[in-house]
Amino acid sequence: MTEINAVCIVGAGAIGSLFAGHLGALVDTSVLVRRQAHADALNREGLRISGKSDRQVRVRASVDPGELGSPDLVIVATKAAAVEVSAQCIAGHFPNAVVMTVQNGLGCEARIAAHGDWPVISAVTFMSGTRHSDVHVEYELDTATWMGPWAQRGPDFAVVQAVADLIVRSGLKAEAFPDLLPAQWSKLIFNSVVNSIAAVTDLPHVPAFASRARDVDLGHLVFAMMAEGKAVAAALGIELHEDPWEMNCEAVRHGRTGDETYAHVPSMLEDVRARRITEVDWITGAIVSEARRAGVAVPINETLYRLVKACEASWAMDAGNGQ
Amino acid sequence: MTEINAVCIVGAGAIGSLFAGHLGALVDTSVLVRRQAHADALNREGLRISGKSDRQVRVRASVDPGELGSPDLVIVATKAAAVEVSAQCIAGHFPNAVVMTVQNGLGCEARIAAHGDWPVISAVTFMSGTRHSDVHVEYELDTATWMGPWAQRGPDFAVVQAVADLIVRSGLKAEAFPDLLPAQWSKLIFNSVVNSIAAVTDLPHVPAFASRARDVDLGHLVFAMMAEGKAVAAALGIELHEDPWEMNCEAVRHGRTGDETYAHVPSMLEDVRARRITEVDWITGAIVSEARRAGVAVPINETLYRLVKACEASWAMDAGNGQ
Repeated sequence: MTEINAVCIVGAGAIGSLFAGHLGALVDTSVLVRRQAHADALNREGLRISGKSDRQVRVRASVDPGELGSPDLVIVATKAAAVEVSAQCIAGHFPNAVVMTVQNGLGCEARIAAHGDWPVISAVTFMSGTRHSDVHVEYELDTATWMGPWAQRGPDFAVVQAVADLIVRSGLKAEAFPDLLPAQWSKLIFNSVVNSIAAVTDLPHVPAFASRARDVDLGHLVFAMMAEGKAVAAALGIELHEDPWEMNCEAVRHGRTGDETYAHVPSMLEDVRARRITEVDWITGAIVSEARRAGVAVPINETLYRLVKACEASWAMDAGNGQ
Repeated sequence: MTEINAVCIVGAGAIGSLFAGHLGALVDTSVLVRRQAHADALNREGLRISGKSDRQVRVRASVDPGELGSPDLVIVATKAAAVEVSAQCIAGHFPNAVVMTVQNGLGCEARIAAHGDWPVISAVTFMSGTRHSDVHVEYELDTATWMGPWAQRGPDFAVVQAVADLIVRSGLKAEAFPDLLPAQWSKLIFNSVVNSIAAVTDLPHVPAFASRARDVDLGHLVFAMMAEGKAVAAALGIELHEDPWEMNCEAVRHGRTGDETYAHVPSMLEDVRARRITEVDWITGAIVSEARRAGVAVPINETLYRLVKACEASWAMDAGNGQ
């Protein structure tokens, strides 16, 4: 398969809707969702994208993969915690498809692969959007999605290039890499540190994350925690695409505009503020388990991992079903 | 000095008021406070203790140490952050006094000693109270205050025993130790871990702090962080009075009463919830600096120390005077 005529998007949150809303203008596009009301609304009203793009497309939506034909490409765009359920749902369907995962962290490809013999594309996305309703998403950060053949069971690189080409033609940004691990790990290490520290301190990604002027400054912790992640990558033979510390410094510099200070609220802090279970198992937790596999000590990552898990446990306590 | 006829209490928060309200019935007792209105109220109405004791005493209060005569014993009972200012205030006064410090953490004795040549008694207290007003404190936890001659410049042990005797005769609990360091460090390690973890997770001291059943359980972090503190104590040649992990397990067990779960809110979490600057510099920060002195790696303590400092920084940001 290097010609893609039909695509199925699994999950129509912000990221899934951005894919569906753009690809829907080019190829036959279906959407697999969890709620019947969501499927009905999409079938009735189509999908509207505003912001960085402005378009309205028809999509075919269902809660049943059996109703969505035989796509060439399946993009799993749920949160990491929902990948297992998505994989169970599509098991036995879509025999001709390549499946692409687009989650934060590590381990989603293997969850998919356990439920079918589809070739798997790994992807990480830097784009973002805000979901205004079941049928309307605002496209905000128009940065790229990076993809590559999953090392354990990927398609030919030509297939990955065809997927990237299609996404670019649809109006989004994408880039294909023969080996995604260097980029995936750069983002993983960056996220494992910035997200978990933000989650426990209630600090958005402010310049303090890059400050090492005084001994107590937070930048020392960020730097030391990233050094642990880099040691794990090195032990696994992964050369990083970008240095996470540089990504961190760059990101907080971009946050500043004139006198105003704008700071990004990392998704894990958003989850904590909303008291939603976070993606920490797939992000900081992934660093911890990869470190064990590689025999590298990561005390700071273990600390932040357990602190975020303890925060999650405290909400259970408030809800009266913990102790 | 082994006869104590006059005492001055510096700071009339909960702990200072408990000392003044009990000692005031036995010996000439004065109170040094920061606010004139507080001094006026104490001079006019005296001090009332309710709860575990019930008494009303006259005290002499002032904002000026020059008005408080020549006490034999000065008890500095402010929070750690206020000890420096208290020491500056009493500098040049009280030439015949022994000064006793009763703060959480380490380092307050040296702050006092830098401002005068008084012999210094180290103390840690386990009693607690609630301050209802400038002239009324409720005595809650009637546990002991432990004291010993400060190693750098303490009085004879007989003096410490006389102080402990006086406090016991006044109706509070006290015990004198020839060497307080083992008890001080047990409490320091316990507090450095329980307080800082509570502060960043918003968890009171719940049974999860002692749970190590599953890999993600918080007890692993508590245990590993206490092990760092114990390694520092060992490197400094300090044999602990009690094992902090046992204190932790004991404390969460005591928290349970039948079906109900009651959990203590550590003072650092109280401070974080009220957005007051915490005592972390004197507690977890003290472990970090003692570890450097001893050449022991304490990555988890450094992590929690910087996280609490980052929390404090976030309030400054909210107040609009940080970035």
